[in-house]
Amino acid sequence: MAFNVTQKLIDGHLLSGEMTPGTEIGLKIDQTLTQDATGTMVMLELEAMGLDYAKTEASAQYVDHNLIQVDSKNPDDHLFLESATRRFGLYYSRPGNGVSHPVHMQRLAKPGKTLLGSDSHTCANGCMGMLAMGAGGIDVAMAIAGEPFYVKMPQVWGIELKGRLPDWVSAKDVILELLRRHDVKGGVGYVIEYFGDGLKHLSAMDRHVIANMGAELGATGTVFPSDDEIKRYLKQQNREEDWIELKADRGASYDRYEEINISELEPLVAKPSSPGNVVAVRDIAGEPIYQSYIGSSANPGYRDFAIAAEIVKGKQVANGVSYDINPSSRQILTDLVEEGHIASLLQAGARLHQAGCNGCIGMGQAPASGRNSLRTTPRNFPGRSGTREDSVFLCSPETAAASALTGKITDPRTLEMDYPKIKEPRKPTVDESLLSVPLPLEQAREVELYKGPNIASIPEMNELPDTLEMPILLKMGDNISTDEILAGGARVLPFRSNLPEISKFVFEIVDETYYERARKTVEQGGHAIIGGFNYGQGSSREHAALAPRYLGLRVALVKDFARIHWQNLVNFGILPLTFVNEADYDKLKQGDILTITDVKNKIQQGNEFSISLNGEKESIKVRHALSARQIDMMIKGGLINWVKAQQKVTT
Amino acid sequence: MAFNVTQKLIDGHLLSGEMTPGTEIGLKIDQTLTQDATGTMVMLELEAMGLDYAKTEASAQYVDHNLIQVDSKNPDDHLFLESATRRFGLYYSRPGNGVSHPVHMQRLAKPGKTLLGSDSHTCANGCMGMLAMGAGGIDVAMAIAGEPFYVKMPQVWGIELKGRLPDWVSAKDVILELLRRHDVKGGVGYVIEYFGDGLKHLSAMDRHVIANMGAELGATGTVFPSDDEIKRYLKQQNREEDWIELKADRGASYDRYEEINISELEPLVAKPSSPGNVVAVRDIAGEPIYQSYIGSSANPGYRDFAIAAEIVKGKQVANGVSYDINPSSRQILTDLVEEGHIASLLQAGARLHQAGCNGCIGMGQAPASGRNSLRTTPRNFPGRSGTREDSVFLCSPETAAASALTGKITDPRTLEMDYPKIKEPRKPTVDESLLSVPLPLEQAREVELYKGPNIASIPEMNELPDTLEMPILLKMGDNISTDEILAGGARVLPFRSNLPEISKFVFEIVDETYYERARKTVEQGGHAIIGGFNYGQGSSREHAALAPRYLGLRVALVKDFARIHWQNLVNFGILPLTFVNEADYDKLKQGDILTITDVKNKIQQGNEFSISLNGEKESIKVRHALSARQIDMMIKGGLINWVKAQQKVTT
Repeated sequence: MAFNVTQKLIDGHLLSGEMTPGTEIGLKIDQTLTQDATGTMVMLELEAMGLDYAKTEASAQYVDHNLIQVDSKNPDDHLFLESATRRFGLYYSRPGNGVSHPVHMQRLAKPGKTLLGSDSHTCANGCMGMLAMGAGGIDVAMAIAGEPFYVKMPQVWGIELKGRLPDWVSAKDVILELLRRHDVKGGVGYVIEYFGDGLKHLSAMDRHVIANMGAELGATGTVFPSDDEIKRYLKQQNREEDWIELKADRGASYDRYEEINISELEPLVAKPSSPGNVVAVRDIAGEPIYQSYIGSSANPGYRDFAIAAEIVKGKQVANGVSYDINPSSRQILTDLVEEGHIASLLQAGARLHQAGCNGCIGMGQAPASGRNSLRTTPRNFPGRSGTREDSVFLCSPETAAASALTGKITDPRTLEMDYPKIKEPRKPTVDESLLSVPLPLEQAREVELYKGPNIASIPEMNELPDTLEMPILLKMGDNISTDEILAGGARVLPFRSNLPEISKFVFEIVDETYYERARKTVEQGGHAIIGGFNYGQGSSREHAALAPRYLGLRVALVKDFARIHWQNLVNFGILPLTFVNEADYDKLKQGDILTITDVKNKIQQGNEFSISLNGEKESIKVRHALSARQIDMMIKGGLINWVKAQQKVTT
Repeated sequence: MAFNVTQKLIDGHLLSGEMTPGTEIGLKIDQTLTQDATGTMVMLELEAMGLDYAKTEASAQYVDHNLIQVDSKNPDDHLFLESATRRFGLYYSRPGNGVSHPVHMQRLAKPGKTLLGSDSHTCANGCMGMLAMGAGGIDVAMAIAGEPFYVKMPQVWGIELKGRLPDWVSAKDVILELLRRHDVKGGVGYVIEYFGDGLKHLSAMDRHVIANMGAELGATGTVFPSDDEIKRYLKQQNREEDWIELKADRGASYDRYEEINISELEPLVAKPSSPGNVVAVRDIAGEPIYQSYIGSSANPGYRDFAIAAEIVKGKQVANGVSYDINPSSRQILTDLVEEGHIASLLQAGARLHQAGCNGCIGMGQAPASGRNSLRTTPRNFPGRSGTREDSVFLCSPETAAASALTGKITDPRTLEMDYPKIKEPRKPTVDESLLSVPLPLEQAREVELYKGPNIASIPEMNELPDTLEMPILLKMGDNISTDEILAGGARVLPFRSNLPEISKFVFEIVDETYYERARKTVEQGGHAIIGGFNYGQGSSREHAALAPRYLGLRVALVKDFARIHWQNLVNFGILPLTFVNEADYDKLKQGDILTITDVKNKIQQGNEFSISLNGEKESIKVRHALSARQIDMMIKGGLINWVKAQQKVTT
């Protein structure tokens, strides 16, 4: 059978299921990446699972998110992560090395491999002929422990690129064009696979730009072929031996096909406050700006910074404009320094920040209130910049740099200069010491995890008991989001590595008394909550399941669940049930006692069973949607316990 | 009469008083500097005073402190400051230009001039043959408005430097030696004046290092002569015409004399948690470190960074060490980039931060808990780093860099390498566009102040009424600090530019009900508070007077005052009174009504008068210590109103 690149990657890693779109498949994961904002919990999960040593080919922990150290919490996390990488046999990338995605590309990415990362832009490394996907933290922990990654078999959306980019138009405009056409839900259920003659003039880093923002289309992943350009890139990185060719078979087909003639593109910009809100730059030219921001995994290449430097070289950025330069990696920063581009930027008035994610994730560089910020980053969701009512535009480095000069949103084609031709550095820096290599197993076993005062191990979680007898502690309405279950933000997030502390914020927005009432149930068999439709919508944060579980939540009985939160509940051993008769929702109130006898057998024997209400007086029919694997997980008390049992079997 | 350099500077600027140590003198101020943390209030004070245009020769506003932008407050402040500099005819230094002290030295410092700055390290520019002093915000606002600066005539402490620094020992070790000998109170009441053959090999920037940390000795200022080295420095800065020679007259004498033979110095370090806690590095060598930190106004020179680069060049810093590089100015950063030093630092694993104060003032780069941090900064007071129980050591760049390599506190003389000889860049960068120059008066008058939602003008303050009749809202004991009057920290400081908001925190620690009770008194003639001994000790923050005044505080009656807070009370029109008979303290309680009739005449007629208590029943004798100038200020309702009246007279 003729396969496209995506199908080849899946076929080569298929451990369970069939390649029928929409059905669950289990994939072997070769590589993982974690960053520090999600990685601390992943490392605590590995500890709780009792992992001895990573079972992947390469797993790397990057420190790129929480670089602002206003107290000891972030640096303590860094030291914890460093110790965990030594303990579990992972690569470690220290603060200042840069953003996970470009650094992974430089040092570890390999064509033909799978990569799972606890960061939604993990798809960026699809530029290297990999199947690279973002996932929740515990999914990545599972992969590090050698377990398959379960996902719905995607459809493949083939996009043929034709032509060659005109002057002043770059890779960012290609992905903005796709967002202009299809908006932020356009890629859901797909892997986007690029091919065609248009690739010839797109470097590996240009492809990174395009692959990265597949996340903004909602795609499962983005895949590029591994061709001579990838070979050239790996050679530059002293890793030519890691190259294999990977291209679609002659006659391969796609579930959906589209063509972009990149010769016809012009500078584009996503207006506030959605990456899908794309218009031509010339349509909004002239709007005054406060900020021009260069960097992030959506424009991490040497070229992206060099062009931003060449455009302002010998000039001064406009008064009152904050021209923020955020290098993406230590290697590229070094090249930019050595080739004179950093000097050009500094002399033009730029602010040079340390290499990392920085303002892209709201970690500094928030714009002034009511002022426009023009950024090369991938996202402009409301408030993501840190400023409450922000006004963030996404664009190419060309557009951002041109606008920094004029102080207004500017189509770079209107600058009175020739389009700068950027040459690669003659000898690009290769920094093989960027990543600390994993310790050998025998040495790793000697390492103690370093835990500062704000880092707490995940406590043991008990198995599902034979009988659940629990009070209802909360009854909620429709559309309860994970933000209401457990808020994000600067008040709560610093406790991301400390389950006992972060659990104090659970359901705080819904009912301030929940925490005190809930923790009393832990020793008494736990408690249940009742919800309406779309329970658990919004952010995928796994703490919104783990923290309530820590406080004794055993059953969530609702009208229906949001998909990711349902998965998180299962992972952390909270039984997710829906009403067979939605009208039964009205029969329940806070304080009622729910009893499920013989629960282990009931969930194994079928998808429907009865719960008795307040003793024997009344009963309610409920339903679960667990697979056999998930039932086993639920009985053991959640994924951590389940993997712990697997580890015992295999070691 | 034979004058030393300090006496020449004072004599040339004396507007009132006599040069008798300990008596008040009024000095003409030629230049001012403000930074963003203190400058927003200074600009609001200028607005409240009705200033038309700065009357100094040069006043510059730097943005170097609040560079971390996690929400819109800091960037809004930056835009406000930028608009205020255009309105009032000041220089503006944008974020990313670097720390006020070295940037001022590069672009504006002039031998023979006086400089007043709302930053305690303003004394650093004493290296240029200036009388440079730190002061409170409103003192600087007064100076910008052309008013004299009032200070006690200091004694002059002559320090003769002999010899030449050995390899691996640098300017930082000179000032650490002085702190080792005299501790942090050793310079109180003095201007420290350096002279002698030892100066020959100390560059202008080396002298900056020494002058800067005069603040840590408690000195009023630090003065160096203006010699050929200063001429050479100004020539490098394209400002040779700003040079004048300034040296002590033959036969000049000093109130105190000391000698340091710098040939005999060795690497020194101030241990936690005082700059005066100095020992030899070799005495504590071997202690493991988390952090090595290069930068700040205490080691801002090209040389300081270049040596830190040469020491680690071609090597890697130890695992787990955060090697934080904080450039002090855009010019120097550009030179470091062009001469290859930044590349050396990056390749060794350093984290390169934007130019500014950064971690020196706890704005990022806090160390991990319980771990040692080695810094080239001037201060290591407990918790200043942002980490609650921190462990910060102060040292030279040589010691910090050597320790970054080994991961332990290391005497740099024990490294197996020759002492790197640092050459100045052949053509040092001169960035004349660093500072936006003042607008001409006519244009300045057209400028509107830009105020984000968190910036509020200082409301009008009324004159002292003829009769004060006020309830006592609080009665406190001894040693009430300004932190108890108005806390600092991350919760309160973001409101530094918003008097109505920050006033909500006044006396919160003492009595949570104060704010609500106090604001009700504003329309009814205000209120009084009672205190014991040493009232208002601690931080000099002027908000601790301004904010209670905004809430109606008119009289503070205590056993005695801490000096700076007393001054701040006077400045903001709060009448500071002490008991003639301390036993009267016991007669007063919260809720009592104090009445002072004919108050304006009473304070003019003598230093003692009576207050009646609860009507006519009883009276209490009180005392004030106001000068005639201060009485006039008090009657007008405080310094802002007083200057406003002066401005009217002179324009």
